Amino acid sequence: MKLRVLLFLCAVTFNSFSQNNVLVFQSDFGTKDGAVSAMKGVAMGVSTDIKIFDLTHEIPAYNIWEAAYRLSQTAQYYPAGTVFVSVCDPGVGTSRHSVVLLTKSGHYFVTPDNGTLTLIAEQLGIQEIREIDEVKNRRSNSNESYTFHGRDVYAFTAARLASKTISFEEVGPKLPNEVVKIDYQKPVFEKGIIKGGIPILDIQYGNVWTNIDKKTFGNLDLKSGDWVNIQIFNGSKKVYTKKLQLVNTFGQVPVGTEVCYFNSLLNFAIAVNQGNFSEKNKIYSGATWSILISK
Amino acid sequence: MKLRVLLFLCAVTFNSFSQNNVLVFQSDFGTKDGAVSAMKGVAMGVSTDIKIFDLTHEIPAYNIWEAAYRLSQTAQYYPAGTVFVSVCDPGVGTSRHSVVLLTKSGHYFVTPDNGTLTLIAEQLGIQEIREIDEVKNRRSNSNESYTFHGRDVYAFTAARLASKTISFEEVGPKLPNEVVKIDYQKPVFEKGIIKGGIPILDIQYGNVWTNIDKKTFGNLDLKSGDWVNIQIFNGSKKVYTKKLQLVNTFGQVPVGTEVCYFNSLLNFAIAVNQGNFSEKNKIYSGATWSILISK
Amino acid sequence: MKLRVLLFLCAVTFNSFSQNNVLVFQSDFGTKDGAVSAMKGVAMGVSTDIKIFDLTHEIPAYNIWEAAYRLSQTAQYYPAGTVFVSVCDPGVGTSRHSVVLLTKSGHYFVTPDNGTLTLIAEQLGIQEIREIDEVKNRRSNSNESYTFHGRDVYAFTAARLASKTISFEEVGPKLPNEVVKIDYQKPVFEKGIIKGGIPILDIQYGNVWTNIDKKTFGNLDLKSGDWVNIQIFNGSKKVYTKKLQLVNTFGQVPVGTEVCYFNSLLNFAIAVNQGNFSEKNKIYSGATWSILISK
Repeated sequence: MKLRVLLFLCAVTFNSFSQNNVLVFQSDFGTKDGAVSAMKGVAMGVSTDIKIFDLTHEIPAYNIWEAAYRLSQTAQYYPAGTVFVSVCDPGVGTSRHSVVLLTKSGHYFVTPDNGTLTLIAEQLGIQEIREIDEVKNRRSNSNESYTFHGRDVYAFTAARLASKTISFEEVGPKLPNEVVKIDYQKPVFEKGIIKGGIPILDIQYGNVWTNIDKKTFGNLDLKSGDWVNIQIFNGSKKVYTKKLQLVNTFGQVPVGTEVCYFNSLLNFAIAVNQGNFSEKNKIYSGATWSILISK
Repeated sequence: MKLRVLLFLCAVTFNSFSQNNVLVFQSDFGTKDGAVSAMKGVAMGVSTDIKIFDLTHEIPAYNIWEAAYRLSQTAQYYPAGTVFVSVCDPGVGTSRHSVVLLTKSGHYFVTPDNGTLTLIAEQLGIQEIREIDEVKNRRSNSNESYTFHGRDVYAFTAARLASKTISFEEVGPKLPNEVVKIDYQKPVFEKGIIKGGIPILDIQYGNVWTNIDKKTFGNLDLKSGDWVNIQIFNGSKKVYTKKLQLVNTFGQVPVGTEVCYFNSLLNFAIAVNQGNFSEKNKIYSGATWSILISK
Repeated sequence: MKLRVLLFLCAVTFNSFSQNNVLVFQSDFGTKDGAVSAMKGVAMGVSTDIKIFDLTHEIPAYNIWEAAYRLSQTAQYYPAGTVFVSVCDPGVGTSRHSVVLLTKSGHYFVTPDNGTLTLIAEQLGIQEIREIDEVKNRRSNSNESYTFHGRDVYAFTAARLASKTISFEEVGPKLPNEVVKIDYQKPVFEKGIIKGGIPILDIQYGNVWTNIDKKTFGNLDLKSGDWVNIQIFNGSKKVYTKKLQLVNTFGQVPVGTEVCYFNSLLNFAIAVNQGNFSEKNKIYSGATWSILISK
C-alpha cells in the first residue's frame, strides 16, 4: 500500500514538472527588426508543435533589473511545465553562466545567470539549476557567430526542452542551488513606519508601484477608506509628501484624484484616477528611489 | 421529413455559434510590461489547445471609443465561433456589468459593458448577452486583487468559453439584448451635402478615415476620377477646405498628391499619396471633428 | 535500383518543399490598429491549424528596402516549408505583380514584386515564381475594396498555401525566374581597401551594420584584437574616421568603448559597448551611406 502511494506521489511530482510545449520569450530586442522572429524560427525548426508566446521584448536595453521584474510579474500565471527564455545579456560572450532554472513550482527559465533570476528564484523557489552544455545544445553551424546566443543557444535549448526533445538533465551539468542576485531594498517595518522601494512603474498608466506587500502593510493597521501618510525620496532628497486615501477601486474617487491602492500583484501602489501620477509628480523607479509610509 | 430538416437547421445553427478554440485579446495595456502575457498565461492554464491572437494592445489608455472601433474594424474577418476579449476599463471595480455578447454572426465578446460594444453590436447584431457570474467564473485564489479583472475574470472566462470548458449558458445569467452605447455622429445626406464624423485616423500612414459609407456617398452621384468638395471642422471652426480627386488607388496620382478614396472598410477617406495627411493639415479624429462633402 | 533511388530523391525533394502550416507575417502596418489582426483572422478562417508568427510590423511606411532586409535577416532560421507574407506596398493597385516565390531552400514568400524580394532571392536562390491568380485566390466578397490586398489577397493566399488547401501550382501561372531588384552597393576589395554599404542599423542598440561579409573582410588579413582603419561617408562627405579594435564580444572592452565586430549575420559592424554608436556619431543607414575599411 505504501509503495502504491509513493508511486502515485512520484507520478504527480513528475507530472507537475513535465514540460507542456509552451514557450515564452522575453528580451530587450524590441520588435522592429528580425531578431525575435529569428528565435521563434529556430524553435519552429525544433518542433512545430510548440506554442510560443511573448512576455515582452520592450525591456530597456541592458536593464537586467526590469527583466527580472517582468518574470516575477508574469511567470506564476502560466501553468507548471512552461519554459521561459529571457535574453537581456549585456555580458554576452563573457564568463557568465548560461543556465536553466527549474523552480519548485515547475517552471523553467533559460537565461544568462546575470541577475535576471533574482526575483523569480525568491518567489517560486529553486528546485534545480543546470548549466547549458553549449557543445551539445547549440544550433548546428552556429559556431562562427559570437554575438547571438539568444537565437543559437537559448532559443534552441528552450525549444528542445519545451518539446521534450531533451530532458532537463540533458541540458547540461547540475550547478549549486544559487543564482546571481541584484541587491535591492526589501520592505521593512520599524517604529510605526514602513520603508520600501519603487522597483517599477506601471508605465502604461503612470502608476507608481512599490514593493511593500499586503502583509508588511498590515503592521500599520489601516483599512480601505483610511488616509495614509506618504513620503517619496530620490536618494536623500524628499520629492513628494502627502496624505492619500486608500481605495479598493479608482471608481470610488473623482477623475484626477491621487489615491493609494493595492495593485494586481497585491503590492502598495499610488495613482491618479485616469491620470499619470509619475509624470505629474516627476516620480520614477529604480534603486535610488524609496518610500516611507505611516498612519 | 420536416423534423429532419429542422434538426439539420438546428445543427447548422449550433455549429455556426460553436466556439472554435480561437481567442483574440485587445487592451489598453501596451506590451512593455507583463500584463498581456499574464492574461495569456491564465488562458494556457485553462487549455494549451487554445490559439491566441492579439487585436492590439495600443488602445490609448481609457479610450473606450477606440476600443469599440478596433473591434468593428477586425472581428468580422475572424471565423464564427471566435472569442474576443477587450479590456479597456476605466471603471474597473465600479458597477458596470462584465458581459459576454454573442452576435448574430456567431462571434463572442468578453468585456466590461461600458461602451466598448457600441459599434460591434450594430454591425454584427445582438444574438444574446450574458453577465459573467464572477463567483463561478473567476481564477481561483484571485479574490484579494481588486484591480486586474482582465486577468482574473475576463481572460479566465474567455479561455474557458473558447475551449468549451464552459458553455455560453454557463457564463452567467441572461441580460436584456441591449449594450451601453457611446453617442456619435452618424453619416447623413441633406440638400446635396453629406455630413459625417471622423471616428479614427489610419495612424500608421496619417490618413483620415470618415464614417461615410459607400451607400450614403452614392447620393452624390460621383464616380472614380471626379472631384469632391471637402470641408473639415473641429467643433465650429473650419480647418480645411479643398476639392480632391476620388481615386481607386494611390498609384494613379503623383507622390505627394492629396486624394480621397474608399478605405479597406469601404468608408470615405482622405490621404496624401506616400505622405501623412493628418500631420500635414493638423487634422485629427474624435467626437469634435466633422466633415462635409458635396459635388 | 536506379528507379528506386530516383523515387527516393523525388520524395526528399518534395518533402523539403512541402508546406508546414507555419505562416509568418511582415508589414509596415504597425500594431496600433486592427489591420494585422484582420489578416490573421482571414488566415484562421482558412484553417485554425495554421501556426502564425510575426516577423515585424514596424517596417517604416513604404520602406521596401527595409522589408527586403528583414526577410533576409530572418527567413533562413525558419524550417523549409514555411510561408512568409510581406506587405510593404506603396504601389498597391498599380501594375506590380502579386507573386509567390519558392526559394531553393524550400521557403515561400507571398508579396508584391516591388523590390521586397531583392535580397532573399540572392540569398536563398530562386526555385520558381508564380503570379497570384486574383480571381481564384481572393477572399470572397472582397472585390469592392481596392486598398487592402494584404488582407484580401496575400493573407488569404498564403494561408491557403500554408495549410495545403491549395498547392504551389494552384497559386497561379508560372513567371520567369526573375524578381524586381533594388540597386545597392555590394562589398568590394581593391588595393588593400574594402568598400561597402550600411544597409541597416541594429536600431534597438544603435549599432551600425555594414554589408561587408566575413569572406570579403578576410582580404585584409586581420584577426580579433587587431585595429581596423574606418572611414564612414554620407554621400561624398566624410563623417567619421577612426581606428577601432576588432573584438569577439563586447565584454572584452570597458563600457563606452567603440569597437568593431562581426554581427549575428556574420557581417562587419560597429558599436559602443552598452551605448548607442549611431546617435553618438550621427551615423545612419541607407543608400547614401558607405564605409571604407583597411589595415
